[in-house]
Amino acid sequence: MARGEEPAELLFKNARLVNVLSGEIHKANIAVADGRVVGVGDYEAEKVIDLAGAYLAPSFIDGHFHVESSMLTMPEFARAVVPHGTGAVVIDPHEYANVLGLDGIRYVLESSKNLPLDFFIMLPSCVPATHLETAGARLTADDLALMIADERVAGVAELMNYPGVYLGQESELAKIRAGKGKAIDGHAPGLKGKNLNAYVLAGVRSDHESTELDEAEQKLRLGMHLLLREGSTERNLATLAPLITTHNSMNCSFATDDKLAGDLVSEGHIDHCVRKAIKLGMPPITAIQIATINVARHYRLRNFGAIAPRFWADFVVFDDLKKLVVRQTYKKGLLVAENGKYLGTSPEIVPQPRSTMNLRYQAANFEVKAQKTGKIKVIEIVPEQIVTKQVLVSPKVVAGKIVADTARDILKLVVVERHRATGNVGVGFVRGFKLKYGAIGSTVAHDAHNVVVAGTNDADIKRAIVELEKMRGGLVAVAHGKVKAALALPIAGLVSDQPLAEVIRCMDALNAAAAKMGSDLEAPFMTLSFLSLSPIPELKLTDQGLIDAVHLQKTTLYA
Amino acid sequence: MARGEEPAELLFKNARLVNVLSGEIHKANIAVADGRVVGVGDYEAEKVIDLAGAYLAPSFIDGHFHVESSMLTMPEFARAVVPHGTGAVVIDPHEYANVLGLDGIRYVLESSKNLPLDFFIMLPSCVPATHLETAGARLTADDLALMIADERVAGVAELMNYPGVYLGQESELAKIRAGKGKAIDGHAPGLKGKNLNAYVLAGVRSDHESTELDEAEQKLRLGMHLLLREGSTERNLATLAPLITTHNSMNCSFATDDKLAGDLVSEGHIDHCVRKAIKLGMPPITAIQIATINVARHYRLRNFGAIAPRFWADFVVFDDLKKLVVRQTYKKGLLVAENGKYLGTSPEIVPQPRSTMNLRYQAANFEVKAQKTGKIKVIEIVPEQIVTKQVLVSPKVVAGKIVADTARDILKLVVVERHRATGNVGVGFVRGFKLKYGAIGSTVAHDAHNVVVAGTNDADIKRAIVELEKMRGGLVAVAHGKVKAALALPIAGLVSDQPLAEVIRCMDALNAAAAKMGSDLEAPFMTLSFLSLSPIPELKLTDQGLIDAVHLQKTTLYA
Repeated sequence: MARGEEPAELLFKNARLVNVLSGEIHKANIAVADGRVVGVGDYEAEKVIDLAGAYLAPSFIDGHFHVESSMLTMPEFARAVVPHGTGAVVIDPHEYANVLGLDGIRYVLESSKNLPLDFFIMLPSCVPATHLETAGARLTADDLALMIADERVAGVAELMNYPGVYLGQESELAKIRAGKGKAIDGHAPGLKGKNLNAYVLAGVRSDHESTELDEAEQKLRLGMHLLLREGSTERNLATLAPLITTHNSMNCSFATDDKLAGDLVSEGHIDHCVRKAIKLGMPPITAIQIATINVARHYRLRNFGAIAPRFWADFVVFDDLKKLVVRQTYKKGLLVAENGKYLGTSPEIVPQPRSTMNLRYQAANFEVKAQKTGKIKVIEIVPEQIVTKQVLVSPKVVAGKIVADTARDILKLVVVERHRATGNVGVGFVRGFKLKYGAIGSTVAHDAHNVVVAGTNDADIKRAIVELEKMRGGLVAVAHGKVKAALALPIAGLVSDQPLAEVIRCMDALNAAAAKMGSDLEAPFMTLSFLSLSPIPELKLTDQGLIDAVHLQKTTLYA
Repeated sequence: MARGEEPAELLFKNARLVNVLSGEIHKANIAVADGRVVGVGDYEAEKVIDLAGAYLAPSFIDGHFHVESSMLTMPEFARAVVPHGTGAVVIDPHEYANVLGLDGIRYVLESSKNLPLDFFIMLPSCVPATHLETAGARLTADDLALMIADERVAGVAELMNYPGVYLGQESELAKIRAGKGKAIDGHAPGLKGKNLNAYVLAGVRSDHESTELDEAEQKLRLGMHLLLREGSTERNLATLAPLITTHNSMNCSFATDDKLAGDLVSEGHIDHCVRKAIKLGMPPITAIQIATINVARHYRLRNFGAIAPRFWADFVVFDDLKKLVVRQTYKKGLLVAENGKYLGTSPEIVPQPRSTMNLRYQAANFEVKAQKTGKIKVIEIVPEQIVTKQVLVSPKVVAGKIVADTARDILKLVVVERHRATGNVGVGFVRGFKLKYGAIGSTVAHDAHNVVVAGTNDADIKRAIVELEKMRGGLVAVAHGKVKAALALPIAGLVSDQPLAEVIRCMDALNAAAAKMGSDLEAPFMTLSFLSLSPIPELKLTDQGLIDAVHLQKTTLYA
């Protein structure tokens, strides 16, 4: 067929080909067979698709994404992003791994097959995040080595324990070695100077955490591949765009990191990054290279990211280079989305390896005895940040117990271990939710994903936990003993088994319920989900109790 | 050391760093230890080299070179190019392999160690060139598979049998598969259109044979890595430069393919390519990226091609970005050349695996009986090209034998098989050397490298062969029974065991002798060496006789 001796299966005719290899846009006809491009030129084919001068570009690739952040199954995630032109995603199943370990990664591999979207896996490198929380699993370098050779495994995911790496801790260096020459992703917010040099020297090859220009410049100069992040909350492209030139853009890719289902649908995925980059003044061809071939080359995604012989026929079609609204998405030559509508198949849900809600707790343990004097440490939310502050307040005491004080916006925060039925319960207090009544709860609670509930009273807190257990995981808003809104996340306590539209509807309902209860946070459930993340300063609460996240040690409630 | 907790071994201070990763030139200090860059920044070190604002760039890398074309041993080749800033060379030991097979490749690996220059090997894919000549070895895909895993083997060398590839011949596809995901080099002069699509689809990833803009554009658009060639005779950079933009330059590297020792010393190596590209209007940073990181990435030369933590401390120092005269070359932190003078070590010559001059011939076979009538086919040289023309002439006959006719510039051409003592002798006639007396001979005779001699009389032809045998291979000019100039090439009959300067001196003497004998060719010995190359049109002579190189079959002397 390539030689033109017999007709190809399919011909995309009269395209304006966005050629990311020659860095130009030129007219072309593209012949396809067996899901691949077999020729560019004047070919015959059994079926002809006349593009009538529309742009044809390679499908987009996300360089770093935690698919759990969408709370969608793989098929429903495909439903969300394929209409936006996404053809492949490099995912770090960090949350699945924290709950299910290697079984979680295998589940991701298994449940992401037979979709019009290719998934490549980076092996989570920091499970659990610290020893100060009880996760569902622990992954060592030996575990990573067991899976690294899989052809869909692209490398080792973000090495979040960056001090461990730059200090040369053997456990962390072993994880890099387990990568066996595949990609090694970094995660080094704010890291600069000599320790950054040491981090790079240890073998880390990328970073997606730069929030400042100077920081990103240092990383780029030292040879890191820059993943330009545009997620639901973390948005760095506008800040970093001035750094990117046509002399260095080959060392950049786009990434979303964490993005909610609703945002993926309404705003878009990597197509949004491309649009934004073009708006920021980047040449369209450069923005599209960053969204396609650059990612494929960095992660060695064979035959992805360009339109030329041997490459998969993963295409997007659009009519205006600046607006860049994806009209059609093709996967291996098949039309899989058109005008925002997903046309792909939806395979049945793959059963998860095991149940993950194993609770054993006594509600009496939610009570906190007051001391006679002294102030207590309260977690103060910093809106739209995952860091928190520690503040000292005089507790409100009723009948010898410290209780929530809605007048001062102090809620009780409870974490219940859910993986191994240890009975661990952590209790603390939090300021910033502004709930006037009720409680909100979640089994999405980075990184160990235990049950976390913030509430104004113990009864509603308990009611939330009961509901979460009943749903086999999820998000819930409870008031006066009644469930006001809920989203069941029965898959690992992280992911819904419902269709995309239903997930978005429930999420909207949950946010509305929290708002009605008094919260003015943009995303109160996301905020809640980060209150257990022990490596992030300053004060956190895990199933093991209050954590001084600056010094990475347990701490007491009273100051 | 990277963390700055103890002093580095070496600090290159006050550099203008040519940063091929961030695509800019910025001031920097570079710390080195154990031969690698460990940090870029304000470091302490045991030894400080103050560059006082000079440019510091990564050492240059040649993307495709036949080291045999220099006729130098590996150490002497290093002596020639290291002062020009070359730090690594991707070589295709095609000539060694034609003479010595896998033993030749192993010899190249062995004899290229412990030098201030790194060699990466592409496994020759077309040995012998055709079935119409008797080479010293035959390499199949199975042979390539035996060596592909070597860490210094970067892939499979130029697939010269490009019709075999695009027609899908199993023997050629097997060679591509033997590459096991390493680089697959192409060689497809003039190939365009659908057959080029098929060639790319088969798995070929680069090409260095483009001589026209349109041809190179097609190759680049289809995803081939373009090796921009500047050799002793083939010079394509000026032609192809208009194609290269900052949107596609990442898909280009420089290569020399074939370059004589004298040209390497006087004109330079990859530094010459960089200078020429800059003169042609290319941004200096782009030209240096093409000469460094682009090659390293294409061939996956780990830790080569940039200056950043983990990369080898392979540096060049120069004072003027446009003139770009390399003042110093560093290898793994050591100064190995300065102001044109080589400071590296010269290890002892590694013994070759076996002798390669195994002749058995009868001089009587050089005689050609005349027929009563008819014209004969004569090879006509096309100056500075490897193609020849076929012309028909009436032979000069003396005593029933066809003899050379200097009046019409028709010399006798003799090829004697030298690998297996088959006794094969091919005899023909050639026009274009313009020798008035004597003979010139060579054991460098692409691709089989048998003995080839062009002469005005049988006595001098025989004298040349005797001398070549005595020297165990080489080049020779003979007149009136006496050797006028010679260069012994006892290593595989291809390479001298003498120092660089002596090789250049002998080569100059040989050219002068040929000129004195009447030749006006620029490089008569190079011309001679291509008269046996059976796959290149139109008429050639091998040990098997006259070859119709258009139809790839033996032919007769008489038309």
